[in-house]
Amino acid sequence: MRQGKIEIRSATYMEMIDITTNIEDILKTGGITSGFCFLFNPHTTAGLTINEGADPDVQKDIIAGLQHLVPRHLPFRHAEGNSPAHIMASLIGPSLTLLIENRRPILGRWQRVFFCEFDGPRNRHIHWRLAATI
Amino acid sequence: MRQGKIEIRSATYMEMIDITTNIEDILKTGGITSGFCFLFNPHTTAGLTINEGADPDVQKDIIAGLQHLVPRHLPFRHAEGNSPAHIMASLIGPSLTLLIENRRPILGRWQRVFFCEFDGPRNRHIHWRLAATI
Amino acid sequence: MRQGKIEIRSATYMEMIDITTNIEDILKTGGITSGFCFLFNPHTTAGLTINEGADPDVQKDIIAGLQHLVPRHLPFRHAEGNSPAHIMASLIGPSLTLLIENRRPILGRWQRVFFCEFDGPRNRHIHWRLAATI
Repeated sequence: MRQGKIEIRSATYMEMIDITTNIEDILKTGGITSGFCFLFNPHTTAGLTINEGADPDVQKDIIAGLQHLVPRHLPFRHAEGNSPAHIMASLIGPSLTLLIENRRPILGRWQRVFFCEFDGPRNRHIHWRLAATI
Repeated sequence: MRQGKIEIRSATYMEMIDITTNIEDILKTGGITSGFCFLFNPHTTAGLTINEGADPDVQKDIIAGLQHLVPRHLPFRHAEGNSPAHIMASLIGPSLTLLIENRRPILGRWQRVFFCEFDGPRNRHIHWRLAATI
Repeated sequence: MRQGKIEIRSATYMEMIDITTNIEDILKTGGITSGFCFLFNPHTTAGLTINEGADPDVQKDIIAGLQHLVPRHLPFRHAEGNSPAHIMASLIGPSLTLLIENRRPILGRWQRVFFCEFDGPRNRHIHWRLAATI
């Protein structure tokens, strides 16, 4: 079984944390030349996504866009006050499947893999697992 | 081939139905100790997500948040009047991939798996399929 | 290794392009009777989704709904002016996993697979890869 965890420490209330290098490091020694890399986020106020990493303004705009989509002033019931973060978690999604080729993830020129913190700062982690192509 | 269907009956127009126990029951006898469980929703006005299950208010807030995101009064073209449900289906997504370990899904402490009804009440079903890790 | 690319040419700023026939053609000769078909979009201003294909008004309503969700007039930072497209890319998601049975994708009666262009017109492509069920 080729699997493990990536530990993540978020520093602010909402942010996108680039974990592409973590994944690339796993694949270098993961023993899988070609196949799949599954990522799973076990937190209900966070998510995983792929988007542009070259201009950090894109990440700020995605956060701003999500805050516009799910305003905090809506009359939510959940007493913890983090219902917007739960909604964003379901909008962005809890997992990713990456294709692996030559021990590297197949990503577009501008793509990076991000852990999305929607209710930080917190200590977080994600699960990863590799599978060879049959 | 280890696969099948989970039958679901929604009771209202929009709701989140916890199907975690159905999945746990499948895994107990599914013959896969470690691997993956794929879930696929074949309906275009429903979705699959993972979120908090402890406080039912979170589910109500997610529904309320989606209704805020996609208001019914927008000037939609589709004559059936359920365009918001179609949009929510694409926002939430049609499928999930779960990691399996010791015949159980890997889920965070607060995570549960939900079928999301956006245009009920209806009789629904989802497809599941297991794959052992190579 | 059973994998390849689907070339896509978008014609307008935002549109949903039905790629179901492309996938069906791949599966006819892909050598996999039963298993999985993974689709991955390498672009940061596009996405992949499954929704109704019978009435083209549904696709127009999904586009209109996304434009309502993420208005262009928000005070974004990213200088290229396509931040709404980046946000939509993360809302819709970069990949899909399809179940295959009898050399065909398992899809609901009304479901079709769509490439979503959020910043066109452009030349695009997606990666596909098949895996047999173990």
